[in-house]
Amino acid sequence: MIDALLLGTGGMSPLPDRWLSALLVRCRGELILFDCGEGTQIVWRCFGWGFRRLGAICISHTHADHIAGLPGLLHSIANAGRTEPVALYGPPGTAAVVAGLRTIAPWLPYVLTVREVTSGETFPLPGGLTGRVEEGRHALPVLAYRLDLPRARPFSPERARAIGVPLDRWRRLQQGEPVRWIGGMAAPDDVLGPPRRGLSLGYVTDTRPVPAFPAFFHGVDLLVSEGSYGNPDDGEKAVINTHMTFREAATLAREADARRLWLTHFSPGMADPEAFAAEATTIFPATTVGFSGLQTTLNFDDEPDIEPS
Amino acid sequence: MIDALLLGTGGMSPLPDRWLSALLVRCRGELILFDCGEGTQIVWRCFGWGFRRLGAICISHTHADHIAGLPGLLHSIANAGRTEPVALYGPPGTAAVVAGLRTIAPWLPYVLTVREVTSGETFPLPGGLTGRVEEGRHALPVLAYRLDLPRARPFSPERARAIGVPLDRWRRLQQGEPVRWIGGMAAPDDVLGPPRRGLSLGYVTDTRPVPAFPAFFHGVDLLVSEGSYGNPDDGEKAVINTHMTFREAATLAREADARRLWLTHFSPGMADPEAFAAEATTIFPATTVGFSGLQTTLNFDDEPDIEPS
Repeated sequence: MIDALLLGTGGMSPLPDRWLSALLVRCRGELILFDCGEGTQIVWRCFGWGFRRLGAICISHTHADHIAGLPGLLHSIANAGRTEPVALYGPPGTAAVVAGLRTIAPWLPYVLTVREVTSGETFPLPGGLTGRVEEGRHALPVLAYRLDLPRARPFSPERARAIGVPLDRWRRLQQGEPVRWIGGMAAPDDVLGPPRRGLSLGYVTDTRPVPAFPAFFHGVDLLVSEGSYGNPDDGEKAVINTHMTFREAATLAREADARRLWLTHFSPGMADPEAFAAEATTIFPATTVGFSGLQTTLNFDDEPDIEPS
Repeated sequence: MIDALLLGTGGMSPLPDRWLSALLVRCRGELILFDCGEGTQIVWRCFGWGFRRLGAICISHTHADHIAGLPGLLHSIANAGRTEPVALYGPPGTAAVVAGLRTIAPWLPYVLTVREVTSGETFPLPGGLTGRVEEGRHALPVLAYRLDLPRARPFSPERARAIGVPLDRWRRLQQGEPVRWIGGMAAPDDVLGPPRRGLSLGYVTDTRPVPAFPAFFHGVDLLVSEGSYGNPDDGEKAVINTHMTFREAATLAREADARRLWLTHFSPGMADPEAFAAEATTIFPATTVGFSGLQTTLNFDDEPDIEPS
């Protein structure tokens, strides 16, 4: 399962009543953060997820409202006792920005690696997740992220027993390896059912919708998307400032065949984003207008764990 | 008069219920900020003082909890429409740190000048204030600041009339210039009373008390001083971490003959600083344990504006 926690929902400036947009993801006890504006570490402390297990930071782009909180967070991870490496991902140009910000976080008790990634790259993330990115279109390079948690094929103990596989060979079969024993052999296909759907999550902000997105986010369990403007009259602003309206985010969720959509990154000029909920739900009903503290757990579909015989 | 507003009182890490230590000063409508940790611009928005009139930023030292909020603030000043220069003061090393942080605030509609200062230097600040600094003792270079607002000598209209000074010469006499007119002349001393006490404010944080401080802060109307530790049992921690206890801050206020003391920069381990108020007030009664939003106005002493004849 994957836990997701929306820390904030603001764009441009952190406000007393709206933390900047950031998303925290937890899988197998390991944490991944998406974006880190000023104040992210403050609101983080409200939810008890701790800093020590943060293994990766995925930065959409290097505008201040998405990265200014990094040095403070790096200190808080250190104060929490982390010594294992932390990996930071971002678009081209990220390394220079991180180096600049680290003038106030020069010594850390863990290694911070910075990897600049571009469309099509995949990389391993903490908790057994796989990350992928797709470039968006904004005032400077921006990345949309997709996380995938694969699910193993179902294992049939009945078939394994029928073939006579010794118990100590079951794990290797489950892991997809053929096994032999005195008097017999078995291949994974003999005991494993069909591939199963895993879990996936998409995060996209500070970009216009680009043609690659629906395929990139295809079938995600949860799409966390910016919706800078709820009011449909702000469509031109969205184009000029290279952001998205609620309608555009909902259209992306529908075209991607996502299961759920969370809206975030609201313009400071939009005092009550919830008032524009219908702009999204009429296009994509499973939309939630985000708020700080919005949480969910993505579970594998409720399939039987043992293939029906 | 000088207005002072304590924005936050925390040391080390910004917490959901305690903003990082920072002080805002207003004189003749112009603003000066002391320290700018992560979140300073957020709490600032709660008090309606606006960003546009910020003319100077005085940084005590370049630890993250005193400067990490700078890039976000620089953007907010820009968004507020400022185009006049902003001057930033700090100890040696500040310019390199500011340059690093400006990787995420590279283009601003105003000029930001950085001036590294050391003990004994004075410099003009917005609102007619004069700034001075004294070096403290911490893990890296740190400055204590003093602001002075001079007060003009009292002008006696009675004397001016008796001497026959034409009205259009009064202002120059008030400004300390001798004047002549057809049939007469007057020197400032003919019409001005004795020098009068001005207003002054001290700001000191992240340092041990050093011998120069009592003289440096002598007679200030308000001393805003760190008191990282209220519990007198933490005296050793204060020495090791080069901070001050409430007692040490109160002793400094007493030795400096300050009029009032505000305590700030509380250790995150001190949940209720107010509980230790007596540690300071027994030494220096006019102590206030600081909180976000603590405000005061420093007024000139209530002397008659016209010298008694």
